[in-house]
Amino acid sequence: MIFFKNMRVRSYFFVMMMLLVMAWDPCAEALGVKYLFLFVGDGMGTCQRVAAAQFAGKPLVMDTFPSHGITTTCAANRFITDSAAAATALACGEKTNVGVLGLDRYQRPLKTIAEMARDQGMKVGIVTSVSLDNATPAGFYAHVPVRNKYHDIALALAKSGFHYFAGGGLMEPEGKGGDGLEDNALDLAREKGYTIITTRRDFTAFSPDDGKLIAMNHRLAERKALPYALDRTNDDISLAEFTRKGIEMLEGKAGFFMMVEGGKIDWACHANDAATAVGDILALDDAIAVAYRFYEKHPQETLIVVTADHECGGMSLGFAGTGAETDFALLRHQTVSFEGFRNELTGFVASRENPPPFDEIKPLITSRFGLRFKALNLNEISHDPELSPLETGLIQAAYEKGITTLHGKGSKLSQEKSMTSKGESKKKQVSSHDEDALLYGWEDPLTVTLTRILNQRAGIAWTTFSHTGVPVLTSAIGAGHGAFLGMYDNTDIGKKLMVLMKVKP
Amino acid sequence: MIFFKNMRVRSYFFVMMMLLVMAWDPCAEALGVKYLFLFVGDGMGTCQRVAAAQFAGKPLVMDTFPSHGITTTCAANRFITDSAAAATALACGEKTNVGVLGLDRYQRPLKTIAEMARDQGMKVGIVTSVSLDNATPAGFYAHVPVRNKYHDIALALAKSGFHYFAGGGLMEPEGKGGDGLEDNALDLAREKGYTIITTRRDFTAFSPDDGKLIAMNHRLAERKALPYALDRTNDDISLAEFTRKGIEMLEGKAGFFMMVEGGKIDWACHANDAATAVGDILALDDAIAVAYRFYEKHPQETLIVVTADHECGGMSLGFAGTGAETDFALLRHQTVSFEGFRNELTGFVASRENPPPFDEIKPLITSRFGLRFKALNLNEISHDPELSPLETGLIQAAYEKGITTLHGKGSKLSQEKSMTSKGESKKKQVSSHDEDALLYGWEDPLTVTLTRILNQRAGIAWTTFSHTGVPVLTSAIGAGHGAFLGMYDNTDIGKKLMVLMKVKP
Repeated sequence: MIFFKNMRVRSYFFVMMMLLVMAWDPCAEALGVKYLFLFVGDGMGTCQRVAAAQFAGKPLVMDTFPSHGITTTCAANRFITDSAAAATALACGEKTNVGVLGLDRYQRPLKTIAEMARDQGMKVGIVTSVSLDNATPAGFYAHVPVRNKYHDIALALAKSGFHYFAGGGLMEPEGKGGDGLEDNALDLAREKGYTIITTRRDFTAFSPDDGKLIAMNHRLAERKALPYALDRTNDDISLAEFTRKGIEMLEGKAGFFMMVEGGKIDWACHANDAATAVGDILALDDAIAVAYRFYEKHPQETLIVVTADHECGGMSLGFAGTGAETDFALLRHQTVSFEGFRNELTGFVASRENPPPFDEIKPLITSRFGLRFKALNLNEISHDPELSPLETGLIQAAYEKGITTLHGKGSKLSQEKSMTSKGESKKKQVSSHDEDALLYGWEDPLTVTLTRILNQRAGIAWTTFSHTGVPVLTSAIGAGHGAFLGMYDNTDIGKKLMVLMKVKP
Repeated sequence: MIFFKNMRVRSYFFVMMMLLVMAWDPCAEALGVKYLFLFVGDGMGTCQRVAAAQFAGKPLVMDTFPSHGITTTCAANRFITDSAAAATALACGEKTNVGVLGLDRYQRPLKTIAEMARDQGMKVGIVTSVSLDNATPAGFYAHVPVRNKYHDIALALAKSGFHYFAGGGLMEPEGKGGDGLEDNALDLAREKGYTIITTRRDFTAFSPDDGKLIAMNHRLAERKALPYALDRTNDDISLAEFTRKGIEMLEGKAGFFMMVEGGKIDWACHANDAATAVGDILALDDAIAVAYRFYEKHPQETLIVVTADHECGGMSLGFAGTGAETDFALLRHQTVSFEGFRNELTGFVASRENPPPFDEIKPLITSRFGLRFKALNLNEISHDPELSPLETGLIQAAYEKGITTLHGKGSKLSQEKSMTSKGESKKKQVSSHDEDALLYGWEDPLTVTLTRILNQRAGIAWTTFSHTGVPVLTSAIGAGHGAFLGMYDNTDIGKKLMVLMKVKP
């Protein structure tokens, strides 16, 4: 400290030494990051992460990472983005318009980081809990002006040359006929060397030496997605298992890029269902834990980045009716996802000749959400919260609003709902002029009323059934993790990853 | 790069060099940060900051800082904190219970960073837009178990020895009589060498050579606070002017610590009034700009940290009725704060013998919030948004709900409201069982309905009238700013500041 009396000289010396040392950083030099994991929690805002950690009673694995930053998410043409523009930003480092995948706002093709990695000889894996052709995964391999061109996206998947696709199914593997091999994306994929697997037995048996793999869970929920974590059985392959398999498939001298999406966090938030969103965040965190164990073995060559494409639902951790109190453990009372409950409800109602009166629905509600309609007798014990007359009235009104739709439609309902629940296209116009839209969004009125009331009791409330422009949290560990400190745009994440991996368009 | 073939040796060398160089950091060594500004936006969550920047059409000064981090805010005994526990965390680096100032959770006294700076010979300034004895400023000089012991806090202020207090007034300068000098905190302050100023002329004329100063704006709004930025006239001294004066007062060889609070952002959020919150955030940012210009002159000795004590209102940037669309410029239609409007409304209603019918209130609503009740004729031009029948119904119902309270009470209302609007004490119990509490909180029903509807049109919605547990954003520039990257607790901010200033308890 005594060498430099002059502050400026001392400062200059400091900066020069820093630069010298940074040039020696073993992480930043050599070939760049060899193993890159990018985890995307679709719709996973900061509040969603905090709610999940509070629910779990401990920090998430992603929370324990050393670097965290704030990420802005707007699209080129709208403050509130969608998953397509956001995936393009993460994958290509460029802003584009909502709905657009792998093209810039002038429709010019962009190269994705996954394609850059592939062209550099690295192996690439794409894992998601939704269909493999959904916006977030597609953003890493497809180049289409409209995100719901599912058949075009499926063909792009088959031609991608990526080593591993895993998770949900495909929305439109088959075209309209007449295009020969191009008519069936799965046939095309087989032609291109992929093995397609749809059972746990084949999944377990598949060896990394067997070549390229497309692995789908045997049971798919609405929109060809994995079941929600809240609804899964041991038969269902978890996101963590798909991630572990991905590491086996991709590990090698050339290194890899793997994108893993928790895609249904967003859907649960569109339905204002915190328990289901939290379940899927914990499932994503389990997958992150798998990557973390790999990182521990290769700390200097591995980088794990966890981000979100946008917030969804306008979740906040405080509700007018509960003031400054919260009780996140109350979410444990919910034992089924909104999707599962809606299907149960539909089945129950459709099995009756006439729409059942509200009283007959109450036991189902209590068993699935732990909400009691009546006070306890002296000798009864229950941890279920008792509904107020106001809440009971809201629930009954919602049931009566939805009953005509539910009754007689039966299982057709879930299909119809599934096409509109994400609210991407053809959805009815919401507006401040329509009270039903404000109360229920696009979900079954009773289902969304129940999840919202349980959430509110926990101290969790929502402002919308759509995405929001709330910045999200990004967390990182491993080689170059410090690049993810501070505040930056989602396009910066793509750019930072390209620099750290030393890949170029 | 060729010296070290062995990665582990290279890595070890890297770390040793980093440590060596960090020991040489001219910012971290010597006497520590000489000039420290801590700006606290009370209730200023990330969404509030983003809304203000979107409204302004450009980044805030605080947004341009190089370091940003995510700060958790919980209190020792509650997930959702209050300003007292949060101020104690920032000032003392320790968690305490809600309502407690400058004591730990076991009621043991803590020393604040401002007191440490003072004891080290530095000058200390406390600036706020609310009363000088409110929780956030008091957290830096008072040690009381209950935050509303305003007279005790005022006495602590007089005895603090800090050089400069500025902004609002005092809630209870006078005690209950009989304690001699202790009965009037302002007399005690004069005895202790303070000049007390309440006019702009005296404020401008006061010279740093004149000694210690307590400066209050000549005009105080509810709860002895400065008027909201939306309601201020050129006669009112702004937070930026108070900050500039503070620099004049405190600058010198010994260095200074200055805390500047934008305290009414929180109150506007309690009332779910985004336009008023944004106005006060921009006023805080103007004060930050003053500090930034000082930093530019003394970059190696100055540190500016901007944080929030907690989020308030559960603001989100997306509303169910507007879907993925936002239009923040719509907030410009509001030309008065909720407080100003409530007072206007009260005056208007109280001036009538009978409660005026709703139709007579409409012109006032349109002129203050730019919300039109009727469609335009062919040759009319207006940028005011037209209310839907649903919105008009909500507004009329709110007016009718509040009219009996408004009528006849006149100016007494604002006083009563002012005592309860922050919701600290004696407030009625909110609960999910009370529909009025869910709709209107503690605010006048018409006023809060109008701000909420205008906010919703802009794409801004709220979940509560209380604080939330949503983590907040912290931004920093200057010596040691990098310490504010990442994710950390509010107590860490206090600890980091102590380390950087090299002060000790």
